Amino acid sequence: MLNIGILGCGRIGQVHAGSIRQIDGARITSVADAFPEPAAALAARSGARVMGSLELIESSDVDAVVIGTPTDTHYDLIHAAAAAGKAIFCEKPVDMSAARIKDCIKAVERAGVPFLTAFNRRFDPNFANLQARIAADEIGAVEIVTILSRDPAPPPISYIQSSGGLFRDMMIHDLDMARFLLGGDEPVSVYATGAALVDPAIGAAGDVDTAAVILTTASGKICQISNSRRASYGYDQRIEVHGARGMLRAENMLENTVEIATDAGFRKAPAQHFFLERYAAAYRAEMAYFLHAVREGGSITPGILDGLRAQELADAAALSLAQGRPVSLANEG
Amino acid sequence: MLNIGILGCGRIGQVHAGSIRQIDGARITSVADAFPEPAAALAARSGARVMGSLELIESSDVDAVVIGTPTDTHYDLIHAAAAAGKAIFCEKPVDMSAARIKDCIKAVERAGVPFLTAFNRRFDPNFANLQARIAADEIGAVEIVTILSRDPAPPPISYIQSSGGLFRDMMIHDLDMARFLLGGDEPVSVYATGAALVDPAIGAAGDVDTAAVILTTASGKICQISNSRRASYGYDQRIEVHGARGMLRAENMLENTVEIATDAGFRKAPAQHFFLERYAAAYRAEMAYFLHAVREGGSITPGILDGLRAQELADAAALSLAQGRPVSLANEG
Amino acid sequence: MLNIGILGCGRIGQVHAGSIRQIDGARITSVADAFPEPAAALAARSGARVMGSLELIESSDVDAVVIGTPTDTHYDLIHAAAAAGKAIFCEKPVDMSAARIKDCIKAVERAGVPFLTAFNRRFDPNFANLQARIAADEIGAVEIVTILSRDPAPPPISYIQSSGGLFRDMMIHDLDMARFLLGGDEPVSVYATGAALVDPAIGAAGDVDTAAVILTTASGKICQISNSRRASYGYDQRIEVHGARGMLRAENMLENTVEIATDAGFRKAPAQHFFLERYAAAYRAEMAYFLHAVREGGSITPGILDGLRAQELADAAALSLAQGRPVSLANEG
Amino acid sequence: MLNIGILGCGRIGQVHAGSIRQIDGARITSVADAFPEPAAALAARSGARVMGSLELIESSDVDAVVIGTPTDTHYDLIHAAAAAGKAIFCEKPVDMSAARIKDCIKAVERAGVPFLTAFNRRFDPNFANLQARIAADEIGAVEIVTILSRDPAPPPISYIQSSGGLFRDMMIHDLDMARFLLGGDEPVSVYATGAALVDPAIGAAGDVDTAAVILTTASGKICQISNSRRASYGYDQRIEVHGARGMLRAENMLENTVEIATDAGFRKAPAQHFFLERYAAAYRAEMAYFLHAVREGGSITPGILDGLRAQELADAAALSLAQGRPVSLANEG
Repeated sequence: MLNIGILGCGRIGQVHAGSIRQIDGARITSVADAFPEPAAALAARSGARVMGSLELIESSDVDAVVIGTPTDTHYDLIHAAAAAGKAIFCEKPVDMSAARIKDCIKAVERAGVPFLTAFNRRFDPNFANLQARIAADEIGAVEIVTILSRDPAPPPISYIQSSGGLFRDMMIHDLDMARFLLGGDEPVSVYATGAALVDPAIGAAGDVDTAAVILTTASGKICQISNSRRASYGYDQRIEVHGARGMLRAENMLENTVEIATDAGFRKAPAQHFFLERYAAAYRAEMAYFLHAVREGGSITPGILDGLRAQELADAAALSLAQGRPVSLANEG
Repeated sequence: MLNIGILGCGRIGQVHAGSIRQIDGARITSVADAFPEPAAALAARSGARVMGSLELIESSDVDAVVIGTPTDTHYDLIHAAAAAGKAIFCEKPVDMSAARIKDCIKAVERAGVPFLTAFNRRFDPNFANLQARIAADEIGAVEIVTILSRDPAPPPISYIQSSGGLFRDMMIHDLDMARFLLGGDEPVSVYATGAALVDPAIGAAGDVDTAAVILTTASGKICQISNSRRASYGYDQRIEVHGARGMLRAENMLENTVEIATDAGFRKAPAQHFFLERYAAAYRAEMAYFLHAVREGGSITPGILDGLRAQELADAAALSLAQGRPVSLANEG
Repeated sequence: MLNIGILGCGRIGQVHAGSIRQIDGARITSVADAFPEPAAALAARSGARVMGSLELIESSDVDAVVIGTPTDTHYDLIHAAAAAGKAIFCEKPVDMSAARIKDCIKAVERAGVPFLTAFNRRFDPNFANLQARIAADEIGAVEIVTILSRDPAPPPISYIQSSGGLFRDMMIHDLDMARFLLGGDEPVSVYATGAALVDPAIGAAGDVDTAAVILTTASGKICQISNSRRASYGYDQRIEVHGARGMLRAENMLENTVEIATDAGFRKAPAQHFFLERYAAAYRAEMAYFLHAVREGGSITPGILDGLRAQELADAAALSLAQGRPVSLANEG
Repeated sequence: MLNIGILGCGRIGQVHAGSIRQIDGARITSVADAFPEPAAALAARSGARVMGSLELIESSDVDAVVIGTPTDTHYDLIHAAAAAGKAIFCEKPVDMSAARIKDCIKAVERAGVPFLTAFNRRFDPNFANLQARIAADEIGAVEIVTILSRDPAPPPISYIQSSGGLFRDMMIHDLDMARFLLGGDEPVSVYATGAALVDPAIGAAGDVDTAAVILTTASGKICQISNSRRASYGYDQRIEVHGARGMLRAENMLENTVEIATDAGFRKAPAQHFFLERYAAAYRAEMAYFLHAVREGGSITPGILDGLRAQELADAAALSLAQGRPVSLANEG
């Protein structure tokens, strides 16, 4: 039996706790949160006790911690958990600063603890299937990767202001996905463009809500990413990969399979609304993978280095947009 | 150069003339119609002369005739053309009476002239592809054939009254398609049900506007056909065939490939409106096949016997509906 | 807190127990099975105790029972549970005999206990959405309902022999779905055809593996149903409903959303394999509906009368096939 | 009756001649080509005479010329036709040099003759429908345009060498489409990346075969374009446009509508092979538009200025790739 401690009992902590409760061989022994109510609620739901964060990390009946707290607390929690020899499941981003992530990498490597950076989309059954088929050479060498990600609606301006900006908050998932699909051929150049087309207040806050990025690798592979904070038809999450012998693409998951035909034509349901529905299976698979890997040993992907690489790409994209030029990863990343 | 005479210069005669004008090695030398205006118009458009029907049939510069006149004139024209040794392209139905079709068969066989019954849907590129892949054993032995055919809107009651009824006027295409797809395994039983759900006036005229039929073959294969005189979303023409190893299905052709996504979901265009658009390619391919076959010799399918078989199935369906019981083809067809 | 007893700890009992464990406000207090191992396993997984069936039914900490035992035991369990005043969730079919179902109806009505006949497909989010939109008049009055259901592969002959035949074992789901979609306009005539095209051994066992049925209602509505025990591409479960103003159809759920394009064309994944995957959400929704209805009171649909009606339609279809004629429900059902 | 002269009797000249032959109110009176055989063949097929190019342009029974000759001859033919007061239908590109196109613009404007730059894709029924619906405000203000264009296979190296490079030969269609869809909001910046991933010989010839471009407009709209000289599954031609209230996208046209389902899943036909099939309807609509516009007067779009703008974008993309930086149109175009 693997004993798990949950750090952060907000929405994402609850999601991960729900996954753990459905997996045999693991249980939640303790939870922690800065606020007593969500901690008490999740403890009751999970049959666990409430503790302070550091107390939880050092508790003898905690084998692994799930870090779902605000990003600025990750650094200290990772250091503490690594020092305590606990396996770490850490929400993305690891930290907003690449330099601080490098510090975390040192702590994790020194301690030799298992670490998963929770880029949940790698575990989506559709995207995982697509990536596995690239790896199985179903379409030959990859040439162009196209990733589209659009939220149904922008978050509050207060969220935008503390988010680190679209590239670090939203596109970071797509940048990690690009690396996942490019299969080890790392981007060496990033060119970004963007604007506040959805809400001028986002522009006034110094951010963009609509953006496109081109990544290029040393061997000439191309990745196009586009993002928007708005999509009237649901959470738009698509991937298309062209290789020497064909294309693989993953379409959206719709709310249902029903189609209506009238004089207006043939109409299907909107896409599933947002990430909790769209990535429900991904969250379960991600946690199952982590718990299995901790139990069985062996390497974990995406690890903390993947967290760093995605952050570096996001930083490069933000720099590119600010300076209006492509940014080289080799020199500046 | 193959010289063609057009009998009947209405809508369908014009369609066939248009096909001939696009085919190298054939030309329209003469046209005939009961009314002078359409004859003159088609003659001008085709560089042909206007003649009387029998005069045209006996003309030395006519090698083949295209019969697109009202159904009740087919009998005499077929006999005259057969006697004159002309190849015959005859619109469906050959005749409303199976007995009279048998007379025509004798005349055609005696004369040994090429004869095509114009079941145009066999030449639709989609349906022809589907049938060829059944014949190529892509799905194994056929088990269930499902054919759906819905007109966009009912014809005028005056048309209904002289149409011979839904089974002989509309479903006859589907009954021929069933035989085409069942590949020689002839239906031995027909069960029909139907009602006037679209327009009570159709019921008052003694006909139905909504119907479903089950055909069964001696070996147990099943064919389901459904028809309606109404479809708000365009001309609905679909086929689905299940075999031992899989399924083949042909979807509708839509007006265009554009899809719009809004908060109402994902919407595509309606189906192509009606038969002139939907079967444009089929009409061209049908005529090209006929002209090629006349020039090269060899058997022609669908021939006049196929015209008879479809009529017998339509008669059996009408009888089944009238009597509320399945009708056996072996005994009563 | 609603206390539930599980009668039958086989595959379907485990599915229902899993649903209950995910629903707040209900718990499994006791389980029963003819075999000790599955009972012990499910008890352990659910934090429940193992009891004898009748002991469980009469237990004071059981408010409702879930009957997932072999069909021939339903009769006695329903009578016992009704007598004990327990709410009843009963797997389909209620019984193989319409006469015995009528006995059960009397017992249930006398006791006034809530009863759900577990036609799970009514709770499938896709089919439920489709039905709700018919009820909301999105396509006008229903004209033709088409239901297709194909299993991925035939069951063992031993199963076939005790199954009651394809119409009672497999098509009964579709017959109930037809009633669900026809919205109170009950079928008055059933015509069935069928053959053993998949496996001659099924024919030798006196059953068919391929069948098509036409239902007609008093007002002339038509329902086409086709069934096969074989589908190479997964569990094929589709519905299409035509109404005066349009069509609603529910397509299959595929294993994933990934499409590959190569020189062979565009290829998507097979349909989800079989009922446990395909109807996972339906099972959860069905149980949530039952528990909510028991707690809140009010009528339950599908009730035990729906179980009878579906059985009568299946009986009529079997009779129609045996006698080669349509069977009238009013006279003979 | 409008009298047309065809300049250039190769593949594209034959396509345009075929369109004219199907349009009432226009006829081909004369044809010219550097080689006698194709000229004689097209003349015979069209009932026209063979003439020298300049003789044809000055002929009194030529009202409009169709220029389908090699690109380096366009300049002289446009000047001659403009001087002779003839309406001009000119294949793209108008010329490889933006400076020389500007000369042509002066000649055309001085003469006041109708001029169409044959960006045929604007007339594709799918793309035209998509653009019309943007113009009709179906999705609100445009935010991101994504255009994908992939040829089924690379042309011979000899063609590549004289093509002007991928941006001027292939992507020029997409650059014009971007302008068509952006609706007057002109791109002000172009960033291009590309590589020879399909065939190293293309790289050795100084060109790329795989490329992606980002255009940005003054108001912040973004257009992503990707091109490849290879697509195993047919000619890939797709457009997707995101606006404030939704998305419009045009999918590929497949060879047929047939889908096969087997244990490998659901497979549709490849996309139509190449431009002659895919854009058959576009070529007809383009010529019909031109002839109608010449007859009725009024402005013609895309005109010669559109030919210049697309060329300037292609030049900018080539420069961007060469220098590894975004190129500003305002300063350098």
